[in-house]
Amino acid sequence: MKAEIITIGDEILIGQTVDTNSAYMSKELNALGVSISRITSISDTKEEIIQALNEAQSRVELVILTGGLGPTNDDITKFALCEYFNTELIVYPDIEKYVREIFEKRGRPILEVNLKQAELPKDCFIIPNKIGTASGMWFERFGKVVVSMPGVPYEMKYLMQNGVLSKIQETFERPTVLHKTVMTTGAGESFLADKIKDWEDSLVNEEIHIAYLPSSGIVKIRLSKVSENRAEAQEKIDRKVMELLQIIPNYIYGFDDLPLEQAVGDLLLENKLTVSTAESCTGGHTAHLITSIPGSSSYYLGSVLSYANEVKRQELGVQQVDLDNYGAVSQQVVEQMASAVRLKMNTDFGIATSGVAGPDGGSEEKPVGMVWIAVDSKAGVVAKCFHFENDRGRNIQRASIAALNMLRLEINKNY
Amino acid sequence: MKAEIITIGDEILIGQTVDTNSAYMSKELNALGVSISRITSISDTKEEIIQALNEAQSRVELVILTGGLGPTNDDITKFALCEYFNTELIVYPDIEKYVREIFEKRGRPILEVNLKQAELPKDCFIIPNKIGTASGMWFERFGKVVVSMPGVPYEMKYLMQNGVLSKIQETFERPTVLHKTVMTTGAGESFLADKIKDWEDSLVNEEIHIAYLPSSGIVKIRLSKVSENRAEAQEKIDRKVMELLQIIPNYIYGFDDLPLEQAVGDLLLENKLTVSTAESCTGGHTAHLITSIPGSSSYYLGSVLSYANEVKRQELGVQQVDLDNYGAVSQQVVEQMASAVRLKMNTDFGIATSGVAGPDGGSEEKPVGMVWIAVDSKAGVVAKCFHFENDRGRNIQRASIAALNMLRLEINKNY
Repeated sequence: MKAEIITIGDEILIGQTVDTNSAYMSKELNALGVSISRITSISDTKEEIIQALNEAQSRVELVILTGGLGPTNDDITKFALCEYFNTELIVYPDIEKYVREIFEKRGRPILEVNLKQAELPKDCFIIPNKIGTASGMWFERFGKVVVSMPGVPYEMKYLMQNGVLSKIQETFERPTVLHKTVMTTGAGESFLADKIKDWEDSLVNEEIHIAYLPSSGIVKIRLSKVSENRAEAQEKIDRKVMELLQIIPNYIYGFDDLPLEQAVGDLLLENKLTVSTAESCTGGHTAHLITSIPGSSSYYLGSVLSYANEVKRQELGVQQVDLDNYGAVSQQVVEQMASAVRLKMNTDFGIATSGVAGPDGGSEEKPVGMVWIAVDSKAGVVAKCFHFENDRGRNIQRASIAALNMLRLEINKNY
Repeated sequence: MKAEIITIGDEILIGQTVDTNSAYMSKELNALGVSISRITSISDTKEEIIQALNEAQSRVELVILTGGLGPTNDDITKFALCEYFNTELIVYPDIEKYVREIFEKRGRPILEVNLKQAELPKDCFIIPNKIGTASGMWFERFGKVVVSMPGVPYEMKYLMQNGVLSKIQETFERPTVLHKTVMTTGAGESFLADKIKDWEDSLVNEEIHIAYLPSSGIVKIRLSKVSENRAEAQEKIDRKVMELLQIIPNYIYGFDDLPLEQAVGDLLLENKLTVSTAESCTGGHTAHLITSIPGSSSYYLGSVLSYANEVKRQELGVQQVDLDNYGAVSQQVVEQMASAVRLKMNTDFGIATSGVAGPDGGSEEKPVGMVWIAVDSKAGVVAKCFHFENDRGRNIQRASIAALNMLRLEINKNY
């Protein structure tokens, strides 16, 4: 069964807002066997909305709209929907009650514009939004469905989880599309593709589709199979994944969009281990990745971010003579940082990073993108030098991912 | 002049990849007066690509494709383009040279699949990609243009900056669309909308369009005006922005998508001030935001991330009696953290955060989303309690933004 997504809002078309909503909705719908065949972003004019709705409804059974339901004057989606479905706005008293409650809870005065949020199209099923003022709307005509949700990501997610997904499951019959994603780190896309070429060729016989999805430091290998028989398809995909695990065991750290920081956190938790970080070029990003995981306080105690050399000396006891002889971006310094933070925070592992994030500060000997990373543990200290790219943001991201991967490999080796 | 973007790849339709490319391209094109009227994401099949190309070319003069140019078998865009433009692949020797050079530079062996990247459609203008193996392609037929670029974000950006944008400027005449975005923080969307209602109503007379774009902790107010006369339009928008600055001076921190961390960094740099952070619930995210800005080493020296109470005690000298009496999430503790890190790192400002990021750890007295933030400086220590939402990621992000905003207001007040 096929669906399309239409996102409404000039902010996407002028590039001010990245459309993260579509990815979220697609993922949730795919898991239910609803495949998204097209995502269209249009501007917030009545004409555009009505035209895009017409086109999408001619192709698929389910059309999902987001955006344009806010309290301000630039929000016109519900007016366009009234015109499209030839209906009018009426006040929904229950919704007015929700809206009032939200403002009471926040201790803020309610405004005229906020109350207008309870005026919604007649002849549609309202999906109440208890964390915001823009309700979801579900229109059903001639067996086809149009759903409209606000564009604010966490409100859209709330509505998906509290009404939209369950109503889609009740309303539509769906075939099975199975996906399995193998998460890898430590090797590039074409290196992996070459290494697993024969295995990849064998997928055709099983009618399994493969895609490589590289992002900073991570390559996802996604397998997909459309099938009427879920159990059989699952078994075929699982067998292929088992084969892949034999071919590239060290590069695979998990499955199904598991973030590396979650995989590493799970390993630490299982083995009752703790970690601290001493970060220079990554400036706290490694700690941020670790602490983005709920429950990370069980294995993460703290860090010293030593951007300046004086902080490296005073807080981490890095030797001035090594800073002079080798520079801050060196094996000598990064190893001292890792050992020092481990000792200071009394953790099982200490991770340290020191590099040239860019865009300035590079030299011929130590170009932008050069990063030393060390991991210290009871097994001793290991250090590795990486050469990333020219972009500051990517260098920070890739260095943090590489640091977490070095930690992962050390845990696997020693525990 | 209008353009459309088509992004190709199942990874977007199954929600595995967030389409950040479209936002980047839209922003760059808008700046040249090319307005994006539609963004369409489709799956990587020849039929879909050709159909979407047909539709888009019937509506606009310029169509930009991204994706499907990788070295692996799931990449089929160039084959679809050959069919659409009724041409064939030929080897481009110059491109083969680039591809070889890239592998030499990286010190990796070159594979058969990599060399295939030099096979490109006849009868098109090649835009060389010197940081990757997928070239850009520019097709011109009957005054209409199709551009194809790889989907890897930094390669697409390279091609935009090194060929595509300049060729678009040479090829098309463009009218003027002016945008000005006012960046605000510290107040919600409807609070602002109410506060500036009369001002907003006055925009209609000037034919200026307004949009509110809220994201975690930030509300962007975007003004747009289409005009044949750039100078006149600019002057009208500037006048309105000046008026707005009078109405909500404290909430406005900058313009045109300036990140708050950049605005704060600029303030520190201008005033020759330095900052350090003592982070508990934000776990390094505040430092990460600060250090994401190039040149931040001039004003950022280092931080202590004190997730565990023992680190708060040992590294920041927080009193055990205060931890016992008030808890880690308290004004008493967060003020001590801010003062201690400022002293330890010898900086002009010390920022501290301590809160309940969630999803666990909340209580009736201190619910998930409650965060204490303090800023210490020569003017003394200020602390404030915030109540954010239920989502861990958003709480961390909003707390870091609130901390940077408190720092901004302190700098403005005292320097």
